[in-house]
Amino acid sequence: MRKLFTLLALGAGIAGCYAQQALWGGSQIVSPEVNADNTVTFRFAAPGAQAVQVTGDFLPTQKVQTPFGEVDAPGTAELVRNADGLWEYTTAAALAPELYSYTFLVDGLRMPDPANVFQIRDVNSITNVFLIPGERADYYRVADVPHGTVSKVWYDSPTLGTKRRMTVYTPAGYEDSDRAYPVFYLLHGMGGDENAWSELGRAAQILDNMIARGEAEPMIVVMTNGNVDTEAAPGETSQGFVQPTTALPHTMEGTFETHFPDVVSYVDKHYRTIPDKAHRAIAGLSMGGFHSLMISKEYPDMFDYVGLYSAAILPRDGVESPVYQNLDEKLKVQFDKQPALYWIAIGNADFLYEANKAYRAKLDENHYPYVYFETPEGHIWKNWRIYLTEFAPQLFKKN
Amino acid sequence: MRKLFTLLALGAGIAGCYAQQALWGGSQIVSPEVNADNTVTFRFAAPGAQAVQVTGDFLPTQKVQTPFGEVDAPGTAELVRNADGLWEYTTAAALAPELYSYTFLVDGLRMPDPANVFQIRDVNSITNVFLIPGERADYYRVADVPHGTVSKVWYDSPTLGTKRRMTVYTPAGYEDSDRAYPVFYLLHGMGGDENAWSELGRAAQILDNMIARGEAEPMIVVMTNGNVDTEAAPGETSQGFVQPTTALPHTMEGTFETHFPDVVSYVDKHYRTIPDKAHRAIAGLSMGGFHSLMISKEYPDMFDYVGLYSAAILPRDGVESPVYQNLDEKLKVQFDKQPALYWIAIGNADFLYEANKAYRAKLDENHYPYVYFETPEGHIWKNWRIYLTEFAPQLFKKN
Repeated sequence: MRKLFTLLALGAGIAGCYAQQALWGGSQIVSPEVNADNTVTFRFAAPGAQAVQVTGDFLPTQKVQTPFGEVDAPGTAELVRNADGLWEYTTAAALAPELYSYTFLVDGLRMPDPANVFQIRDVNSITNVFLIPGERADYYRVADVPHGTVSKVWYDSPTLGTKRRMTVYTPAGYEDSDRAYPVFYLLHGMGGDENAWSELGRAAQILDNMIARGEAEPMIVVMTNGNVDTEAAPGETSQGFVQPTTALPHTMEGTFETHFPDVVSYVDKHYRTIPDKAHRAIAGLSMGGFHSLMISKEYPDMFDYVGLYSAAILPRDGVESPVYQNLDEKLKVQFDKQPALYWIAIGNADFLYEANKAYRAKLDENHYPYVYFETPEGHIWKNWRIYLTEFAPQLFKKN
Repeated sequence: MRKLFTLLALGAGIAGCYAQQALWGGSQIVSPEVNADNTVTFRFAAPGAQAVQVTGDFLPTQKVQTPFGEVDAPGTAELVRNADGLWEYTTAAALAPELYSYTFLVDGLRMPDPANVFQIRDVNSITNVFLIPGERADYYRVADVPHGTVSKVWYDSPTLGTKRRMTVYTPAGYEDSDRAYPVFYLLHGMGGDENAWSELGRAAQILDNMIARGEAEPMIVVMTNGNVDTEAAPGETSQGFVQPTTALPHTMEGTFETHFPDVVSYVDKHYRTIPDKAHRAIAGLSMGGFHSLMISKEYPDMFDYVGLYSAAILPRDGVESPVYQNLDEKLKVQFDKQPALYWIAIGNADFLYEANKAYRAKLDENHYPYVYFETPEGHIWKNWRIYLTEFAPQLFKKN
């Protein structure tokens, strides 16, 4: 019996981990280890390395000079060889509850932690993740609650003449009822795609947990792909495995915005939705906040709830699209119709902070009501997960 | 305008790739590069490394000694420094069309290719992938054809008393018709989970392409999780980010098999299926082949199409479950009912080859009809993708 399991395990592992076991002597390294006191230990086997560091968002940021000025980059910490000959580092203090990402630097080279298969791609790089539970981070965990369904769905866009891929979350119970649901459209930032909110943003876990606790209405969440020059996330199109970049063309030139009614039509046709303004929300981070601003004012009868998370708020004077013309007039139309919620959130260290301040001043000048939510730190997923947990409970409370 | 894009791109990348760019001087490395003649070039920046190798299934296998005898492991090739100071290796010959996996070995340490974000987890290790198009590998590509929907769905198992996660593929057009579809249940091997067939197995691409070409019937494909001690793939349960292992308990002790009618009931209730034997197929690889054998004979009126891919075929005398008792009698009942297709496939280098030969001899002895398909090589995903492309077109042709 034991031999069968061993054989099968070996068979399963030959392609992948056998070489690894051979090279590493089969050692079972635990890394990262979240200790009882919420300090975290990282371990790494690299007998020949001269220096091993860990870098991640759990460490204090460090200032880095770039052509665009000084920016905050994740800090680093040194691993040292322990008694077993492994490189090891334990955080100096307990970490606060959060979903953290990190990677190793081995003699200066970025390298994922081979003992941790949990990785998330963020644009064109991959980092390991771990989670310290508790407080708000409990929303980011998979908890023992009813789970919604997460689907990768292709929709037709008559406006663009293409098929496009999106991620659709339907709440637990959707399949077992005839109930119609409100819909929350949730948009990613530059370099992201239809996978970003469900992977880095933990949107399914957040909604599962908030709905299970009765803190958010059961809702459908639709996560689109804002890069109209591509049909889907990297590797999911007929272009093959093309390495992603941050700079995709035509992402902020009006076409995503003008195609957006195609998304809403598809969703209203294929899901049990409540197809009216009072039961639609739109929000996005960074470029997705820009898209949310533009789409919601362009179609003022479509969304009653609007969320701008660290939004890129900028004049688009150089772009021909009519979407970016007459912003002030369109905002007046939108606000005259009194949206149920216009919500603006940003970190006080965000490089878009001043642009958001200026936008708020414009709204204030016109006495357009909005709710403002400010956090520490900058343009990071930690903040966007926070904003989602703050925004979702406010949705669809009007009726 | 340019500045906005640059700023946003930088913002998007700070958490992830900024440190990388800083360390690597922002060089844009292309790796792997599939050349016009289908040779492939790998490149890697590691100024301080003493030796860099690539290991992967595109290289001739090498014999490795293990406690269980000699096994085939992926071969290695040496990268050498090119004129730009990058480590580089180009395959000696054109590679045949296939989805390949590989990783680097930097001074003996396994390390993914940082220029290639396309990675797949196989049990507890992660490898990079690339695809050489053409021939059968064209089934594995995302092509410009109508795409089905891939969903992560939680179902109730009254038998196990738990909720469990599965991957469900519904074919293109499912959402736009009232048609009912046949269902193909597709099971993973030891160490795998409900993600294995859709990721390593390219099941959605294979079905999309075969259905678009008219080579396979439009069908629903249900990919379950065969590890009854877990509810879902690693990281998708309330246990958190627990490192996967190949040796999960209770995977071959009868409980997965006895719970299987719960899956079929759920699917028949929640999808537009044709809920009869003639419109159900079951197949699996390795342990999943074992499960398919056991489930199909245990419920002889459930599946008309059975596929054993490199199946673990072994007596289970030491296990108490009634599922493993009276195999011969149950096989007689199953074959007396004349299944539409009983299909056995294996590689001639598979460590389970002899066990399959013995099982075929048993079927022959009893004049139980089956179709046999043999390939070169062993217990590898390359073969399982081949078997899926051979098996799927034979399904649901009876009526």
